[in-house]
Amino acid sequence: MIDRLIEKIKETGAPIVAGLDPMLDYIPAHVQERAFAEYGETLEGAAEAIWQFNKEIVDKTYDLIPAVKPQIAMYEQFGVPGIAAFKKTVDYCREKGLVVIGDIKRGDIGSTSAAYAAGHIGKVQVGSKCYAPFQEDFVTVNPYLGSDGVDPFLKVCKEEKRGIFVLVKTSNPSSGEFQDRLIDGKPLYELVGEKVAEWGAGAMGDAYSYVGAVVGATYPEIGKALRKIMPKAYILVPGYGAQGGKGKDLAHFFNEDGLGAIVNSSRGIIAAYKQERYRQFGAENFGDASRAAVEDMIADIRGALESRY
Amino acid sequence: MIDRLIEKIKETGAPIVAGLDPMLDYIPAHVQERAFAEYGETLEGAAEAIWQFNKEIVDKTYDLIPAVKPQIAMYEQFGVPGIAAFKKTVDYCREKGLVVIGDIKRGDIGSTSAAYAAGHIGKVQVGSKCYAPFQEDFVTVNPYLGSDGVDPFLKVCKEEKRGIFVLVKTSNPSSGEFQDRLIDGKPLYELVGEKVAEWGAGAMGDAYSYVGAVVGATYPEIGKALRKIMPKAYILVPGYGAQGGKGKDLAHFFNEDGLGAIVNSSRGIIAAYKQERYRQFGAENFGDASRAAVEDMIADIRGALESRY
Repeated sequence: MIDRLIEKIKETGAPIVAGLDPMLDYIPAHVQERAFAEYGETLEGAAEAIWQFNKEIVDKTYDLIPAVKPQIAMYEQFGVPGIAAFKKTVDYCREKGLVVIGDIKRGDIGSTSAAYAAGHIGKVQVGSKCYAPFQEDFVTVNPYLGSDGVDPFLKVCKEEKRGIFVLVKTSNPSSGEFQDRLIDGKPLYELVGEKVAEWGAGAMGDAYSYVGAVVGATYPEIGKALRKIMPKAYILVPGYGAQGGKGKDLAHFFNEDGLGAIVNSSRGIIAAYKQERYRQFGAENFGDASRAAVEDMIADIRGALESRY
Repeated sequence: MIDRLIEKIKETGAPIVAGLDPMLDYIPAHVQERAFAEYGETLEGAAEAIWQFNKEIVDKTYDLIPAVKPQIAMYEQFGVPGIAAFKKTVDYCREKGLVVIGDIKRGDIGSTSAAYAAGHIGKVQVGSKCYAPFQEDFVTVNPYLGSDGVDPFLKVCKEEKRGIFVLVKTSNPSSGEFQDRLIDGKPLYELVGEKVAEWGAGAMGDAYSYVGAVVGATYPEIGKALRKIMPKAYILVPGYGAQGGKGKDLAHFFNEDGLGAIVNSSRGIIAAYKQERYRQFGAENFGDASRAAVEDMIADIRGALESRY
């Protein structure tokens, strides 16, 4: 799957991923009203609004981008109907040829991580039948429990040719509280980065590993250091745009081959119509605003990559 | 909710929690067959088998125990129908008067943690209506992202009088890989424990905080140290029984008031009928085997608490 992701990045020339994190606040009133007219102001209504919103954005951007990253929390908050909207979104994006990164940040003891891995990127057995319940292509994984919480994901990655992105240095302001603390002179995120390289060595695609890492755009110097520690790991970079990261901060997350990183923007793309810059589209045409935001983001990152030497 | 948990622990005299982690392997053939006869060998069939299995165990044990801890991974692995079975289980346990600890180990950047908190222990707004989608009483939280990943849970805990258990030292063999690493001479789990005490100080029930901690039964010496660092935190102790922890290892997880800890057993209770010791019940009477296992566990832990001085 890492090979397919890279192929799609080369095809589109866009090392970016659209974060499908649909807070209800982002969804234009007319989309919400239509959903509530059909399902009422219920969890089902919220889920329908999310789904219709996502579908429009995907329809307007899928030809420009290699991948999407639905953040499951934004669906899970609406209970069972929300999870059904997550599944519907994953299926639709796959139909459109997009690589789907499930931002689930799961991680638990061995047998439990095995269940998450089976459900999200693998298969479960029910009697004599076999199912792939969520069928994302990649998921994000929390490393706090150590190797035996990650190993079950690795096993499924190898069997099913799927991938994971392990949280190494997250984009949020207090990520340093534990992740930056020095252990034998090295920050914890470097130790986790070394483990990512080790875990990934046994699960290689053509040039990059099935095991990638999450490193926030908001910490460009750390990105530079981690790039060297995990040369074969694809880096998923959140925090671009709304969280403060800019294209020029991102150049060092990439390898010299121009590959090795994929930059996520969520609010900056899906709620583009709310920004001054794209306001002329109007809420009715929110999908077109998202398309324009994607085009601008691609130009910003291409520019940063071209001018880095 | 911490006050209600403590009240229930005093009422039952049982500082234990039954882990409802229903792997299909644990579910007797007759329960699976009945579910598959109705729904086929489908995800819905698996979800129905899980639900029927849980219901029987809850019916046979709810009067002995204060709380249950469904591990959401075991439901999530069966996709949307699995999540529906999780919700059904939570609702049923609450109807039976049990405190429900959702073992979800979520944790993300602020806005995303806010969505998890709203969905699991809080409320979401849909138009003019308000819903509590999953409505657990407590959830487990992963601290890797630092304070701003935990704060949204704290906020909801205070508003809704719910609680969280933050992963401090997990029960799995490789938990030490990161959690035990020394930072300024102190292991990371101690730093996290200090943060738990700090987060919890602003969210106090009568004697204990809404903010508890997860510390594995498999590391009794660490439990003793953490008990002192977080005197007001309830400790949720996994790893008893099948994972190797024994009652005598657990005494120091408790405070001198005999409170302060609640010990989880999952497989040891729900798959008791598979153990030599309870085999006489037979698979048909798996619920009775679970009841006997609960009674034995209560006796083991009471004995350990009584003989500790």
